[in-house]
Amino acid sequence: MTDFPFEIAATDGKARTGALKTSRGDIRTPAFMPVGTAATVKALYMDQVRDAGSDIILGNTYHLMLRPGAERVQRLGGLHKFAGWSGPMLTDSGGFQVWSLANLRKLTEEGVTFQSHVDGSKHSLTPERSIEIQADLLGSDIVMQLDECTPFPCLRDDARASMELSLRWAKRCQTAFGHRDSQTLFGIVQGSVYEDLRRESAERLVGLGFGGYAVGGLAVGEGFEMMCEVLDHTVPHLPKDRPRYLMGVGKPIDLVEAVARGVDMFDCVLPTRSGRHGQAWTDTGPINLKNARFAEDDSPLDASIDCPASRDYSKAYLHHLIRCGEYLGSMLLSWHNIAYYQSLMARMRTAIAAGEFQAFRQGFVDGLDASKSD
Amino acid sequence: MTDFPFEIAATDGKARTGALKTSRGDIRTPAFMPVGTAATVKALYMDQVRDAGSDIILGNTYHLMLRPGAERVQRLGGLHKFAGWSGPMLTDSGGFQVWSLANLRKLTEEGVTFQSHVDGSKHSLTPERSIEIQADLLGSDIVMQLDECTPFPCLRDDARASMELSLRWAKRCQTAFGHRDSQTLFGIVQGSVYEDLRRESAERLVGLGFGGYAVGGLAVGEGFEMMCEVLDHTVPHLPKDRPRYLMGVGKPIDLVEAVARGVDMFDCVLPTRSGRHGQAWTDTGPINLKNARFAEDDSPLDASIDCPASRDYSKAYLHHLIRCGEYLGSMLLSWHNIAYYQSLMARMRTAIAAGEFQAFRQGFVDGLDASKSD
Repeated sequence: MTDFPFEIAATDGKARTGALKTSRGDIRTPAFMPVGTAATVKALYMDQVRDAGSDIILGNTYHLMLRPGAERVQRLGGLHKFAGWSGPMLTDSGGFQVWSLANLRKLTEEGVTFQSHVDGSKHSLTPERSIEIQADLLGSDIVMQLDECTPFPCLRDDARASMELSLRWAKRCQTAFGHRDSQTLFGIVQGSVYEDLRRESAERLVGLGFGGYAVGGLAVGEGFEMMCEVLDHTVPHLPKDRPRYLMGVGKPIDLVEAVARGVDMFDCVLPTRSGRHGQAWTDTGPINLKNARFAEDDSPLDASIDCPASRDYSKAYLHHLIRCGEYLGSMLLSWHNIAYYQSLMARMRTAIAAGEFQAFRQGFVDGLDASKSD
Repeated sequence: MTDFPFEIAATDGKARTGALKTSRGDIRTPAFMPVGTAATVKALYMDQVRDAGSDIILGNTYHLMLRPGAERVQRLGGLHKFAGWSGPMLTDSGGFQVWSLANLRKLTEEGVTFQSHVDGSKHSLTPERSIEIQADLLGSDIVMQLDECTPFPCLRDDARASMELSLRWAKRCQTAFGHRDSQTLFGIVQGSVYEDLRRESAERLVGLGFGGYAVGGLAVGEGFEMMCEVLDHTVPHLPKDRPRYLMGVGKPIDLVEAVARGVDMFDCVLPTRSGRHGQAWTDTGPINLKNARFAEDDSPLDASIDCPASRDYSKAYLHHLIRCGEYLGSMLLSWHNIAYYQSLMARMRTAIAAGEFQAFRQGFVDGLDASKSD
């Protein structure tokens, strides 16, 4: 396996900033990866995603294997060409969506069989098939191992069994992945909320050796404090010189606190999903544009963000669009939210580089608290 | 009333090309006006609408008076500022949508009362109120008289009574409009499919004197041939030196045949509405991107159109997006369709200026016929 060079330019406490250098371009870390579920970041043009400051986007193997089909994507030139994204892409393994979306799931040592939530068609996903889809057919830059995403809550014995299965699948993924130029494979730490299981999962994955390490099985209902605790217990057992990716997280405050704990990469549907539902993220928390108080508010969402959606449209107009169910409302709020998330990542990178991350973090928390007490 | 200068640069048969010169910019004619129903051209950014070649867009008085409300738009700086469109705008009178969308309509000599299709609230629209909304509150550049849109089919006596009412309302609109700098008022010819009624309506409107003349009451079910006949009977009674606007029309072939009959302006929801439903317009007719034959078609919709949606995305990708119900599918097809319509208008303007419109028209019809016989 060829690991992408990961250059850490500065650290501040546990927080780090730098770049993961892929053949399709650098990923500035800490990085937020917008989710391009079905070869599109919902309601956005790819140039908006890129211009908002995104270096990498995520594709969902589950969605793409169902529609348009992984072999079809390959025949059409691969996922980058198909989706019109020339930068790096990370694909998930498909396991999480099988767990959360598919019907009639059946899990065995070999892998998982399921029925599509779209048309009921039958499919299977094994470690080998997931790697084939991601690395060979879609042509992903960062490939994720197939794992079982442990549910929450989860008994210790079940969490251990699940973690052991994910480790065996990690090894099979590694074998299937083999040695590749310009593509890398990440392992995924599981173990639910159990400190010793998380440590063991991390150590055994590191023993296998991956290009990067993800923390999986979080943001599944355990809550903010427990998520932070798991990161406190897990990140120290991951190698300093490899990128750390917290999967499926999260709200802005989650990102700030995870960066403080040494996480380098994130993905989440929240900015686009909440945007489609009329919610805009700001430093003082989320605001719901449907609210009548915005009906004649002529101010933009955030004039300090260099994005038309944040700067050039009044809240009154956005309120009107959302109330009317207009496409443009979803388009503009999704765009703003991605720009807001990327602005937050950029501010964190700057603060870490300047050795001012603790002050930034405190200021961010204070801003949220102040708005809550309004 | 200040009539906008209308400069006809060339004629070819009955077809003309030129420009209607407003204080917010020139409208190149023949012109297609995308419909910006609720202060947004659905699923498009205004810069896409403009860059596709649109000089003017249309706003719907009915929709805007319900949401966000005409007085609210005024308080927010008028429709141009609210919607982010700096070019000229035409607003309809609201009458057509009251007729097609509202509940519990009651028509009297005074005007029409109705209940909102959105929330059941009660409203009224008179000639005076329509002018107030369009000219004073929204701040439209081209204001349409309130008329009654005669249904189809319609008995002669009913068509006459309706036409007479529209003429009385035309006069009241003119009085209410008064003399204004930088805004103009268009009258609307009615009379259903009856040649003598259309002529009488046109002549009496011309006697009143308007900045432009619309042909209303078409595209309501009468069909292509009858629409062409009505234009044959109506347009010759309109002054050569004023713009002629065919309301609510239509398919590309309708536009070509109406231009051949001397029409200068059009509006229609078709390109955006059909785009949202997976249909793309081309010189060989509409194609439905949902169709399985596009699943691996790597070609763009029309590489000759200088629009990213037409040129830079494969039909296979569009097929995938539409199949998945993705926003981007509706966004791209609406964008392409507006660009296609504007490309068609530009080609007609060029052909008229070159004295080659009859050849263009024949070629266009032949292209459609050839595709039908495929």
